[in-house]
Amino acid sequence: MQKLEPITDFTEITPSATIATESHGWRAKCLQRLVRLDMPVPRTVALPSATVRGIASGRSLDCNGVLAHFGDSPLVSVRPSPANPDWGGPSTVLNIGMNAARHAALVETQGQAAADALYLRFVQGYAVNVARLDPDMFEIAEPSAAALRDALRAYRDEMDANFPEDPAQQLADVLRSMARAWEGTSARLLRQSKGAPADAALGLVVQGMAQGIGQGVSGSGMIQFVDPVTGLEQVTGRFLGQSQGSDIKARGEDAIYLTHDPRGPSLEDLAPDVFESLARQGSACRAKLREEMQIEFTIDDSKLAVIDAVRVPRSSRAGLRIAVDLAKDGIITREEAILRVEPRALSELLHPQVDPRAPRDVVGRGIAASPGGATGVIVFSSAAAQASASRGEPCILVRRETAPEDIRGMHSAVGVLTERGGMTSHAAVIGRGLGLPCIVGASDLSFDAKDLRLVTKSGRVFVEGDLITVDGTTGEVLAGAAEMLPPALDDAFRTLLSWADDVRDIGIRANADTPADAQTARNFEAQGIGLCRTEHMFFEEARLVAMREMIFADTPADRATALARLLPMQREDFVQLFEIMQGLPVCIRLFDPPLHEFLPHSREGLRELAEALDRPLSDVTRRAEALAEFNPMLGMRGVRLGIVLPEIYDMQAQAIFEAVVEVARRGGSIVPEIMIPLVSAKREVELVKMRMDAVAARVRDAKGVDFAYKLGVMVETPRAALRAGDIAQHATFLSFGTNDLTQMTYGLSRDDAGRFMNTYVQQGVYPEDPFHILDVEGVGELLLIGAERGRQTREKLTLSICGEHGGNPESIAFCRRAGFDYVSCSSYRVPLARLAAAHLALLDPLDDKSD
Amino acid sequence: MQKLEPITDFTEITPSATIATESHGWRAKCLQRLVRLDMPVPRTVALPSATVRGIASGRSLDCNGVLAHFGDSPLVSVRPSPANPDWGGPSTVLNIGMNAARHAALVETQGQAAADALYLRFVQGYAVNVARLDPDMFEIAEPSAAALRDALRAYRDEMDANFPEDPAQQLADVLRSMARAWEGTSARLLRQSKGAPADAALGLVVQGMAQGIGQGVSGSGMIQFVDPVTGLEQVTGRFLGQSQGSDIKARGEDAIYLTHDPRGPSLEDLAPDVFESLARQGSACRAKLREEMQIEFTIDDSKLAVIDAVRVPRSSRAGLRIAVDLAKDGIITREEAILRVEPRALSELLHPQVDPRAPRDVVGRGIAASPGGATGVIVFSSAAAQASASRGEPCILVRRETAPEDIRGMHSAVGVLTERGGMTSHAAVIGRGLGLPCIVGASDLSFDAKDLRLVTKSGRVFVEGDLITVDGTTGEVLAGAAEMLPPALDDAFRTLLSWADDVRDIGIRANADTPADAQTARNFEAQGIGLCRTEHMFFEEARLVAMREMIFADTPADRATALARLLPMQREDFVQLFEIMQGLPVCIRLFDPPLHEFLPHSREGLRELAEALDRPLSDVTRRAEALAEFNPMLGMRGVRLGIVLPEIYDMQAQAIFEAVVEVARRGGSIVPEIMIPLVSAKREVELVKMRMDAVAARVRDAKGVDFAYKLGVMVETPRAALRAGDIAQHATFLSFGTNDLTQMTYGLSRDDAGRFMNTYVQQGVYPEDPFHILDVEGVGELLLIGAERGRQTREKLTLSICGEHGGNPESIAFCRRAGFDYVSCSSYRVPLARLAAAHLALLDPLDDKSD
Repeated sequence: MQKLEPITDFTEITPSATIATESHGWRAKCLQRLVRLDMPVPRTVALPSATVRGIASGRSLDCNGVLAHFGDSPLVSVRPSPANPDWGGPSTVLNIGMNAARHAALVETQGQAAADALYLRFVQGYAVNVARLDPDMFEIAEPSAAALRDALRAYRDEMDANFPEDPAQQLADVLRSMARAWEGTSARLLRQSKGAPADAALGLVVQGMAQGIGQGVSGSGMIQFVDPVTGLEQVTGRFLGQSQGSDIKARGEDAIYLTHDPRGPSLEDLAPDVFESLARQGSACRAKLREEMQIEFTIDDSKLAVIDAVRVPRSSRAGLRIAVDLAKDGIITREEAILRVEPRALSELLHPQVDPRAPRDVVGRGIAASPGGATGVIVFSSAAAQASASRGEPCILVRRETAPEDIRGMHSAVGVLTERGGMTSHAAVIGRGLGLPCIVGASDLSFDAKDLRLVTKSGRVFVEGDLITVDGTTGEVLAGAAEMLPPALDDAFRTLLSWADDVRDIGIRANADTPADAQTARNFEAQGIGLCRTEHMFFEEARLVAMREMIFADTPADRATALARLLPMQREDFVQLFEIMQGLPVCIRLFDPPLHEFLPHSREGLRELAEALDRPLSDVTRRAEALAEFNPMLGMRGVRLGIVLPEIYDMQAQAIFEAVVEVARRGGSIVPEIMIPLVSAKREVELVKMRMDAVAARVRDAKGVDFAYKLGVMVETPRAALRAGDIAQHATFLSFGTNDLTQMTYGLSRDDAGRFMNTYVQQGVYPEDPFHILDVEGVGELLLIGAERGRQTREKLTLSICGEHGGNPESIAFCRRAGFDYVSCSSYRVPLARLAAAHLALLDPLDDKSD
Repeated sequence: MQKLEPITDFTEITPSATIATESHGWRAKCLQRLVRLDMPVPRTVALPSATVRGIASGRSLDCNGVLAHFGDSPLVSVRPSPANPDWGGPSTVLNIGMNAARHAALVETQGQAAADALYLRFVQGYAVNVARLDPDMFEIAEPSAAALRDALRAYRDEMDANFPEDPAQQLADVLRSMARAWEGTSARLLRQSKGAPADAALGLVVQGMAQGIGQGVSGSGMIQFVDPVTGLEQVTGRFLGQSQGSDIKARGEDAIYLTHDPRGPSLEDLAPDVFESLARQGSACRAKLREEMQIEFTIDDSKLAVIDAVRVPRSSRAGLRIAVDLAKDGIITREEAILRVEPRALSELLHPQVDPRAPRDVVGRGIAASPGGATGVIVFSSAAAQASASRGEPCILVRRETAPEDIRGMHSAVGVLTERGGMTSHAAVIGRGLGLPCIVGASDLSFDAKDLRLVTKSGRVFVEGDLITVDGTTGEVLAGAAEMLPPALDDAFRTLLSWADDVRDIGIRANADTPADAQTARNFEAQGIGLCRTEHMFFEEARLVAMREMIFADTPADRATALARLLPMQREDFVQLFEIMQGLPVCIRLFDPPLHEFLPHSREGLRELAEALDRPLSDVTRRAEALAEFNPMLGMRGVRLGIVLPEIYDMQAQAIFEAVVEVARRGGSIVPEIMIPLVSAKREVELVKMRMDAVAARVRDAKGVDFAYKLGVMVETPRAALRAGDIAQHATFLSFGTNDLTQMTYGLSRDDAGRFMNTYVQQGVYPEDPFHILDVEGVGELLLIGAERGRQTREKLTLSICGEHGGNPESIAFCRRAGFDYVSCSSYRVPLARLAAAHLALLDPLDDKSD
């Protein structure tokens, strides 16, 4: 077989060299940027990935040609340079070129100790990384002439050969070893787990050594100019004398501060000129690379060399502040600042977080359903939660799963933990709505309802009153209290979102059911309420009693009497809501859930109810049973209740209109949007509209005040989407309730899907949980059909979505493209949605639609 | 005001006169047909509806002109002639023209008695129908000269005027009275309830009297040549001497037979020539009018007059036989015979019927969910039903509602009655499938489950063991036994359906779950099985135990062990099914229902189960609770089970394939069609297909026999319809399960919809119950989308529907137009579907699609 010519495809990194991230890797490209900034970067040669691949497959490189770039008897290092720094790579090897002759020469110029240390470092690196010898054998605490001799002898004993003396050979061996390591299975799996494609390639850089070991002020260190957790301006980093490479990580305790510091010596004290030059380089780096960089540097006898620079690793909070500060300093544009912050990163800024650096005693894991951390005592019932809250004692509500009757308990708790459920279970949805840290589906904890105990997999037992912490960001349940970071709704946060609002081209409203929710929505600068679910209002103590009387009424007159008691409470709800939302639209969904949700589930509950209603228990039980349904999701709820028991909607409409009049009397102005749930036929809308108009006329007459209102439809059934053309005849807006629409399109109850959703996603049956990420192909097509047909009937029809999907960037992208007017999401997701919408407007501008 | 000219628009009925049903009414048209047949019809003048309207609005008619058609001093009658005989009309008035002079003349020619009787009849008719006097005053038992004088005096006393003498005036009064009666509110409502349009008009006929009272053989009668209940050839009818008009109805006991009869005198004995002439007229009538007619005749001194002829009123059974016989006699074509039988009429021929002529003690009413009548003792549980059946005692299963665990009880019962539910509730669906008379939603009966009593609205109490009858055709619950008519699957039935099969252009298969069902399907000549639901097979005693062991298995190995016990039973099911269906396709749906349906619901049941499985009750209870679902319809069922617990489908596939091999060994041949339920994504089909193919390969290997099978998808979720293009990549057929598809498209559980469906249909929200009549606008669009996208991917894709809608004429029409290959319905609906499809092929031929 004919020997192939050695590869000569490599390039010295100069300002004008052709270096690209795709071919040479991020490190090579970064170094070229530093070179272009005229920073003191040691001479560097970049090997593109094609070259590295060739080496891995057995071809030889023109190593003498590489070494020729570094002058006489050079020492060099080799470092990995994949396209993305997150993909890892083989270990760096330093001091290539060391051999007996070079050692002898260095003894002359740098002294015995430095020469020994440099040589020993290379022998260790080579033996372990290239020759793959046992690292233990080359683990030597303190470099010395003896240690060097031992290492060389150990090498010879193991390899049956002398340590290689030829620098070109040394370099070739190192390169081949690193190229092949990249192809190994474990390296491949590791980088793929971080998102690398299957064909991810490796570049390598060969760099002249800045030794850091030798005469005068010598050593290595790292510097950055912001706090990586807060993003605030602050020099941090360390310097370690007589060190190179990763020494500072291994011997951090010996490192010194960079700036003058009362706690100990600093580089600024030791070598003010060098420090001053370093600070200057850092500042130039930020301005020119348009980013906060962490700089790796080496000092050789007071001479500074910049070895490398990477983006400062940062928390979400720091990332946001850095972007805003760079834009404020004119280094990047506001648009760039917007794009530098990942929308999903915002959600963790809205809640206190369990400090990721603090120790944690993890006792169980579940689905991270609502972000943030909370510590409290365990309570196992809503009643206990309320009692705990009334004592001022923060509590975590622990349930097998939550039901609407737990709402008050959830309001009283600081966090929620359920054994069952998925991302869209009741606990999760309400948790996110309340901004309450929540873990659901914690199936490795078992909740013993009878004995009121929580038992972990390993058998640890928690009882009511024990302190736990839920980390809704990670899904971890921790024993005891954990250290917390406060939420970060600071000026940088508000500034960035105001910039985002300037560029986005789709509205963002909030789902808000109570005045408290509305206040949150207002705080997060939602452009109105897109979904106010009125039924939660009826779970409050006093109202629940009236609700139940209404449910058990024998005649329409009795029903009307019970509803008349609810009317003033409903009206007050709306007055408060309208006052908070002054000047912004409020979309109110009429009563939706099946009536049996308002009845107690337990025998005791029924007995109490029978007493409260002064009826025989058998009667109450029989009626409660008669109301039970096989599939409540598909039963007597929504507009079906509105048609069969129209008094409920009449009462709600009266409350809304009287609230409008009341707010108007106080000088405010509001045009309420009334939304009909669970529509499946045009006639339903027609019938409700007739009654709403009649109620409006009565209120206008009674109050002598005129007002306007809008009537629209929540599109939750596939049929409503298909018949949107008819329905839009009577509706001025359509809001797609993608939760229910997804349930019905898939034939999938979100409360029951948890049982197989994991299997389904793992086996690729569904690419994602469709309750989490909008199913564009199925549900999405119904949205498009509904939107198109609706607008054909009514050109100015307002279109929106208001399901749990509303705040997802994917859904926002879909709705923007479909020409929707707004999306509505949990208040706590509004900031994320505002930012995501801005990203889309910048990255995927819509064609100018004016004509 | 100027007097308008009298109306002269009337026509004597001659063969060439212009007489149309639309203008002159059915009677005038029918009489013209008889005239054209040269039958001895008295001279007749027809007044078109425009003329009658004119009279009603006050215009006068040229009555002398009318009377001129009838010669000197005529007697005439006036009869109503609306466009449709069902619409009723004012009472006939006879003997118009009678007055003192005419009376005197008749005394001379016909004798005093006849003259008195004829005059008296007219005075009575005029006084009551025209002058609107009290009928009681003119009710005279026996005509006589004294009675006549009394009647004339009574008229004068009441009206303060003499009885009118002028025949033209008499006629004018009668016509005006009849014309106005037609416009009255009660007449209008009555005819509208029978389907008449708001503007339905009345024609009138004025006919010369054939008196029936006078010398020699005189009288009136009615004759028909078939039995109105069976349709068999047989002269029936009666003759009453010295009578006219409706006398024979009032005095039927005095009438004599028409043909010679040992039980008494007959017209044939009395006047053989007249009878012979009557029979000849009847035969001509049948041949020329191409219908079995009932002839009204009068005899005056042995001279026959045909007064009128109408279609013989007939039962469904008679209608079918008459149509077939007419076609066999070459009087009508086979196509006409097919079209003369309403498909829906067939269903009552398939079951014994409660005799509509027998007395009935109705104690409650519900929805007529499955036709036919059945009498049996009340049982309140499946166990009691089985016990009753084992004693050979027919029983009616009475439940609040039925659940899958009642299947065995339903198999043991002869009829089912439930307090709740609608047309598509479990009881109704299974009842129709089993051909079991069934009433559901009998909400005026209350079922007291605790005391095992059934209480009617009026307080009557029935206990276990009491005899009742369910009339599933009318929805009536009867106390005690009722007289029954046997089912009518006779030669005429089979003949008509074989003619229907010759013309129809869409396939009809049956839904059949058991060998017994399959035999019924075969008997009804279904072209295969379109839906075999395998889960019912698992409710049998021995299997249920193995099923439950499978459900409670701790490991896949335990699960496999339990399934291995089910395998031979499943295989035997399929062997039987395949043998019965030899040569026809069999489409088997893989296991579909949620597993919790197989667990007991009661505390006792759980305790027994714990014993049977030798597990602690707490364990069994906990697991049963863990399997419970909020919305079972939208939960862990269908292909979701197949993906998560693939061993179940593996077992079923093995049973199917081994049965194919076994049947082949016995010389049979079958290509099974395996159908996957509840699909919502292509990948589900792909995963199941891989396993099915693997099982097939294993069976081929093990048995050394090759065989083929088809894999297809049941489209039940809106998403499967939308994604049919993808899904058809792996499916050779798509069968639309319109029950579930309707549930999901509307967001409407059929088990829960009963509560408001009535209100919805009454208020026009839904034009029909969409579980009863296919919703063409919503669900139908999804069918069209699915069909089109599926065929785009796979041109030869087989398309069908297999929901409860399958047998409805409306659904068949829709599916034919959509290019479907077949519809599948309950075995007992197959005949109806075959006939309905033939109607469509004849009335709405498809364009020739070959090209």
